[in-house]
Amino acid sequence: MEKLARVQLATTLPGAKPICLVGTASEEGDMNLAPFSSVTHLGSNPMLIGMVTRPDVVDRHTLRNIIASKSWTLNHLVPEMIHQAHQCSARYPDDVSEFEATGLTPHFIEGFHAPFVEGSPVRYALELEDIIEIPANGTKLIVGKVTFIEIQDSALNEDGELDLVNAGSVASTALDTYFGLKTLAKLAYAKA
Amino acid sequence: MEKLARVQLATTLPGAKPICLVGTASEEGDMNLAPFSSVTHLGSNPMLIGMVTRPDVVDRHTLRNIIASKSWTLNHLVPEMIHQAHQCSARYPDDVSEFEATGLTPHFIEGFHAPFVEGSPVRYALELEDIIEIPANGTKLIVGKVTFIEIQDSALNEDGELDLVNAGSVASTALDTYFGLKTLAKLAYAKA
Repeated sequence: MEKLARVQLATTLPGAKPICLVGTASEEGDMNLAPFSSVTHLGSNPMLIGMVTRPDVVDRHTLRNIIASKSWTLNHLVPEMIHQAHQCSARYPDDVSEFEATGLTPHFIEGFHAPFVEGSPVRYALELEDIIEIPANGTKLIVGKVTFIEIQDSALNEDGELDLVNAGSVASTALDTYFGLKTLAKLAYAKA
Repeated sequence: MEKLARVQLATTLPGAKPICLVGTASEEGDMNLAPFSSVTHLGSNPMLIGMVTRPDVVDRHTLRNIIASKSWTLNHLVPEMIHQAHQCSARYPDDVSEFEATGLTPHFIEGFHAPFVEGSPVRYALELEDIIEIPANGTKLIVGKVTFIEIQDSALNEDGELDLVNAGSVASTALDTYFGLKTLAKLAYAKA
């Protein structure tokens, strides 16, 4: 199978995925933004979130900053941000901030090292819990504890959960295709 | 924070997620189907897919069958299957097959132990590569190598990737909400 087709097929196989901008900063305060679509819920109490990184590519600034600062942010995308968010996947040199390169605006919260993204309807802060090697192919699962959540009013419903459609939160696949969501069903807890 | 609200918030935080039915069979051939929304791409060559399981809940039949048989299937959902797929999350006793309980139809491929789901537009077979403990909360990352893929013609585009909108593939969040997809953008590889 041709390499590009193989990669495209493999990265679409799981189906629709989340897409978040990961915000980090180096010890010197140099900011980095990178799109990740491997963000997964690992637990609710404590709230743990995992994401997968390949050590050898554009993610490496993100990984280095997370190891050094033990902190990062996850920021949902809305349709208006897609082009700028996508551009954050380009391989910028070390000294270029994706905020400056793409025109996205950083947002800081008192006492937290990593930058959030202005205009993101759902954004949260994570503290490094663990980095787990995946020996099969040298990727790593980065595990973080959610320490702070900021949600636009319209994005939270009365059950205490996110309303992704109202938030305008975008899904993705293959790191090149972006989807809007329409609710098909919300179903009650299933009983045997 | 109230427990249910906390779980709902935590499980919606990543945003829209994939949703697949995981098909397994015990050594005796007893079949099991369970919805998973933690399916993640880990690598393209070899094609590796990860999914997270909690050892203590409904997933346990799935985990036990995967450990015993080293094999499972992942099956995308279309809107017509949502109610039946959701019902597979109920805690049926060991000797009840979710296929029988929900009316979904198993589909077998010569020489492969685990059942596929009839009518799923994208379904693939995995061989167990590794089970990785996540010490932070006792969950496990199940890593599988893709050994066989079956895709309905309409679900594959000319680049060799899945067309999730044409496939009718469904996204989800919080294991109770199901979304249809509409394409917002497909963007070229980003250059610095």
